[in-house]
Amino acid sequence: MDKLSQLRKLISQLGLDVAYISDPMTIKYLTGFYSDPVERVLALLVFPDQDPFLFAPALEVEAIKETGWANPVYGYLDHEHPYEMIAQQVKKRVPNPTKWGAELGFLTVARLRALQDNFPKAKFETDLTPVIEKMRLIKSPDEIAKLNEAGKWADFAFEVGFKAAHPGVKEQAVAAELEYALKQKGIMQMSFDTLVQTGAHAAEPHGATSDRVIQDHDMVLFDLGTVFDGYISDASRTIAIGDISDRQREIFDVCLEAQLTAQAAAKPGITAAKLDKIARNIITKAGYGEYFIHRLGHGMGMSEHEFPSIMEGNDLVLEPGMCFSIEPGIYIPGFAGVRIEDCVHITEDGCEPFTHTSKEFMAVK
Amino acid sequence: MDKLSQLRKLISQLGLDVAYISDPMTIKYLTGFYSDPVERVLALLVFPDQDPFLFAPALEVEAIKETGWANPVYGYLDHEHPYEMIAQQVKKRVPNPTKWGAELGFLTVARLRALQDNFPKAKFETDLTPVIEKMRLIKSPDEIAKLNEAGKWADFAFEVGFKAAHPGVKEQAVAAELEYALKQKGIMQMSFDTLVQTGAHAAEPHGATSDRVIQDHDMVLFDLGTVFDGYISDASRTIAIGDISDRQREIFDVCLEAQLTAQAAAKPGITAAKLDKIARNIITKAGYGEYFIHRLGHGMGMSEHEFPSIMEGNDLVLEPGMCFSIEPGIYIPGFAGVRIEDCVHITEDGCEPFTHTSKEFMAVK
Repeated sequence: MDKLSQLRKLISQLGLDVAYISDPMTIKYLTGFYSDPVERVLALLVFPDQDPFLFAPALEVEAIKETGWANPVYGYLDHEHPYEMIAQQVKKRVPNPTKWGAELGFLTVARLRALQDNFPKAKFETDLTPVIEKMRLIKSPDEIAKLNEAGKWADFAFEVGFKAAHPGVKEQAVAAELEYALKQKGIMQMSFDTLVQTGAHAAEPHGATSDRVIQDHDMVLFDLGTVFDGYISDASRTIAIGDISDRQREIFDVCLEAQLTAQAAAKPGITAAKLDKIARNIITKAGYGEYFIHRLGHGMGMSEHEFPSIMEGNDLVLEPGMCFSIEPGIYIPGFAGVRIEDCVHITEDGCEPFTHTSKEFMAVK
Repeated sequence: MDKLSQLRKLISQLGLDVAYISDPMTIKYLTGFYSDPVERVLALLVFPDQDPFLFAPALEVEAIKETGWANPVYGYLDHEHPYEMIAQQVKKRVPNPTKWGAELGFLTVARLRALQDNFPKAKFETDLTPVIEKMRLIKSPDEIAKLNEAGKWADFAFEVGFKAAHPGVKEQAVAAELEYALKQKGIMQMSFDTLVQTGAHAAEPHGATSDRVIQDHDMVLFDLGTVFDGYISDASRTIAIGDISDRQREIFDVCLEAQLTAQAAAKPGITAAKLDKIARNIITKAGYGEYFIHRLGHGMGMSEHEFPSIMEGNDLVLEPGMCFSIEPGIYIPGFAGVRIEDCVHITEDGCEPFTHTSKEFMAVK
């Protein structure tokens, strides 16, 4: 059963009259069509007993038809009133819909109220965000294949980036080289802004690639990913520039042990929280627990922020097809930062990473 | 008065007990700190008679302090409960807040309900989205200076891109060249995915840069922009590859006339709708009205989707400091597409563009 048919079945089971889907990622997942409409309105209306329709900015209609979408699509111009137009189409199919489902983790309050203005009796009690998240949690073999392909391009980017990282070169120049090499190969989109951070700058886990110059004896942290056919990669490596101090090497070794141990433990039956704990215990026992200030990992697939979240408190039991990052980090302000990350998918008896660049200690110069 | 003080005054006038600000762009506008927390919680709580505070993921706290934020910032770890923690801090300042303001065009229904769980008597009747939009509508000289700088880098990108566009070269390779040249100069971020579209492909105004190869006799459409210190540029040019047909040249000339005429008419006192109409009339009279399928322009500044929207139905009167795009386009499916765009700011007696690359007809080979 295709994904849209699965959703129709689910909303029928939930007793809904209509489902209003507006997260562009969900629309892509269900229809194959992707566009970020920014402030414009893009919505997929799904009914238990009628064909769905898409509602989109007029300038997207051609692109939607080209994807092979066989159900109706209605376009609107910028000066028209999208919610009135949606209401007209909905009422043709279901005259008085009261039980609505919507992605309440995406739908804004203003847009909810615009819908309610057109359907004063509508109740939005059913949150489809967790329903869709659960559908997206287990990846199909076709999705795994795309994630593997995206992973290969991240490996290629590391290869280029490691060659470009020398003393005297700016972080930005290293990022420029690896992204240029990818674009030359037709990989136009990174899944997030490439991070290349050197020395103490790498201790800011959410800092940006800057004009800092790589120095001899630095460690350099790379965190990058590509988009392939709508699916992403996301991986981190930390390398040394020439000789590094014992303390730098120690945090590298501790982080690597945490990463490898967690990755070896990732298999069906273990909980997300337990996996986080395995990595965290290693770092805490080595005395660096206070410097590991984020969860072990996040789910990924079409985006880098899906489920399952690999963190304390999440007792979700891992199952085959779940995809997530394993990315312990140690960030010592003013000194250095290390993060080592693969994203993996759970298999029948373990897990397989999407990226294969060596994680072992490596010094370049 | 700084922007945060202005907002405090406004929420006092609105009679609010507390304002919940969560759009990262608004937080940057008010505090100088920017981060996209994706699914994590980042919020600025503003009170009429108390100092504001920031609430952020723990891993952002250092970066916030580094920006010079002098009021409290509270961090939370991934396994903690952000809305309970926010509620504790709010209640220390205002024990029973009932009148809340929030950006209802940004806040999701799920997050509204999470706030309401902690404040069962809270009323969210005041939408701060239009309040903030109105604040952001008129740019300060400091903001105009940043927009000018971002514009210079777009001009640089055109220069590189025009040199790279030859028959036999892929659209993607042209985009790669110009983005690489920018990154070498330290301009790491484009304001949106660079568009390079050739031939009939340019008739898809929201298509993507592809592996199509530029051919002799094509027109090539560029639409690109950079980010400079949090402010963006956005401009489009269409050039010819060698000789083009009379019909290609005709749609270029019509589009250029519409652009130049509208830009010459943009001044204080004219409405947004009238400006759209000036450009649209030229294209319609030339017989191509049905192929100009979007509004004339959008507001811009920190993002490419701000106000004012330059379109039919918007009777907003233009004032000095308003910034927006003027971008007529003619898209003939299967044949060719032309778009010519500058973003401008309204001055005392006209407007000034942020980009200065010639818009006149140009053929390269």
